[in-house]
Amino acid sequence: MTRRPVTALVMSTSTAPQLFDPPRLDRLHALAQLDRPEPLTEVVSPANRARLREIEVMITGWGSPVLTGDVLDAAPRLRAVLHAAGSVKHHLTDASCWDRGILVTSAADANAVPVAEFTLAAILHSGKRVSAFVEAYRRRSSDSTGRDGVPEASNYRRTVGIVGLSRIGRRVARLLQSFDFTVLAHDPYADPADAEALGTVLLPLPDLVRRSDILTLHAPSLPETRNLLDRETLALLPDHATVINTARGSLIDTDALTAECVRGRLNAVLDVTEPEPLPLGSPLFGLPNVQLTPHIAGAMGSEVHRLADAALDELDRYARGLPPAYPVHLRDLARMA
Amino acid sequence: MTRRPVTALVMSTSTAPQLFDPPRLDRLHALAQLDRPEPLTEVVSPANRARLREIEVMITGWGSPVLTGDVLDAAPRLRAVLHAAGSVKHHLTDASCWDRGILVTSAADANAVPVAEFTLAAILHSGKRVSAFVEAYRRRSSDSTGRDGVPEASNYRRTVGIVGLSRIGRRVARLLQSFDFTVLAHDPYADPADAEALGTVLLPLPDLVRRSDILTLHAPSLPETRNLLDRETLALLPDHATVINTARGSLIDTDALTAECVRGRLNAVLDVTEPEPLPLGSPLFGLPNVQLTPHIAGAMGSEVHRLADAALDELDRYARGLPPAYPVHLRDLARMA
Repeated sequence: MTRRPVTALVMSTSTAPQLFDPPRLDRLHALAQLDRPEPLTEVVSPANRARLREIEVMITGWGSPVLTGDVLDAAPRLRAVLHAAGSVKHHLTDASCWDRGILVTSAADANAVPVAEFTLAAILHSGKRVSAFVEAYRRRSSDSTGRDGVPEASNYRRTVGIVGLSRIGRRVARLLQSFDFTVLAHDPYADPADAEALGTVLLPLPDLVRRSDILTLHAPSLPETRNLLDRETLALLPDHATVINTARGSLIDTDALTAECVRGRLNAVLDVTEPEPLPLGSPLFGLPNVQLTPHIAGAMGSEVHRLADAALDELDRYARGLPPAYPVHLRDLARMA
Repeated sequence: MTRRPVTALVMSTSTAPQLFDPPRLDRLHALAQLDRPEPLTEVVSPANRARLREIEVMITGWGSPVLTGDVLDAAPRLRAVLHAAGSVKHHLTDASCWDRGILVTSAADANAVPVAEFTLAAILHSGKRVSAFVEAYRRRSSDSTGRDGVPEASNYRRTVGIVGLSRIGRRVARLLQSFDFTVLAHDPYADPADAEALGTVLLPLPDLVRRSDILTLHAPSLPETRNLLDRETLALLPDHATVINTARGSLIDTDALTAECVRGRLNAVLDVTEPEPLPLGSPLFGLPNVQLTPHIAGAMGSEVHRLADAALDELDRYARGLPPAYPVHLRDLARMA
């Protein structure tokens, strides 16, 4: 019989029932003693400060308050912060957890699944020029088949360039192994043998960009990745190439990409932009060669159940004294999304 | 050393260089004696009738003339008709080839690859409601994130219904095994154990339709599949379900589907329609919940190289006296696309 640690859900009131449907709530109760039925949404009121005192495990999620050193001082029994979402950078803004030896885990790997799926669909659509055919078919003259004027369409032996062999980039590479793409990658931290095992070859960014029919971004947002695709780098892409961004808007010089798309030289599938949301006056909204979505590639709807499952799996391992599957180390934080 | 049979390319003048790029032409020359450099595009002129006399193998493709009994009588040495495309129903309209014991093969399996890929992309897009988000983002008010009014979006545990475990249907089922879908199928000729091996469960059509969030058609066009999705069957689909058709327009009652899409109850991804091309006045063209493409899911651009490779592989086996990989039997014809 394993111990059932005193556990609190630390997230917004709307997030908790989204993540924990009845079967997952049952599993949570089986694994832990929930300190209160309602989630902890703030950590400043005296009542909640008192509540912190007993908590051994926090399952954090969207809307979690920031866990500063001051908050952790009020939670002397806290041993683990298990995040049921991707990035821990919103609620862990400093080293406090790690300084105190508190275990931190993340569900970033589970959140990578829908992003990689969205990216795969975008790649297959881009290679086949689906958007261009939709437009050509709609605008065709009455005696045409509606295929005119579309650049070569094919997913056979197209070159896909992956920028960043991150969790998501790696999943994209793995998914692409079921298809006949040539997959190349750029990642300054990746190991060539590891890249090879993923079916990719590492290249410097300019070489990658020059050879990519489809370029997909999976790098973190960091000072050194700001405008990674600037005007000069975008200019290296072949004509009619497609840029896919499901990572962060800051990776691309938006004005430079806009100019290329307005000219019709490049296509884009943008789930994130800078600024975000994109102002309604942006010329990108009217372009048939640009697909814009409001940051939806990550977990949505029932996809968030994967995040809850990931946190519950970590809770299970913690309660049984096993090592975590997806620990977050302080040293990783600087390179993470 | 294997024999190099006298072989003719039987297809339109534009098809031949599309299929046979220089490396594939080299392989063709290595495997066969090409009777003439130019393809045989018609079989009525005296010159071409004389040409038929020497041919042992035909590699047929788009634009092939119909090979009637009369044509075959003029080709006494013909032993094999290797089709470098999908359906053989356009050039083999009767039993003449089979009556004469001439081997018939098809590249339908190679042509299934891009159709299954297109379908997978459509499924992932549909589950995630990409089209609805594109529209919501574009039409959002300035203070919104652009996600409002979109029905639940998720690819986790969605139910995909496959109508027809054909070559393409089977490939779709296999591709879906890399994702977290529930995959159900309907096929009156499929074996339950075989369906299970593909990760699907066979159901009667009405049950399949009732349970499908996404329904994708991979059945042949036959008298008995005409309007397979009629008004009553479409009405069984859950609200906000998506119908994907990459097979044949005749499978769906177009008016009934149009009415459901105009009401906004159903979504559709239609690469084929009846009539085809769809008249420009069709209300389907204006709908954000309908994606229309001009019959592009099959092999296009460099994807046709797979068809050439398939025909060359058959030629290689034929020349070495090995059995064909994808023979077409007369008995199969009635059930084929």
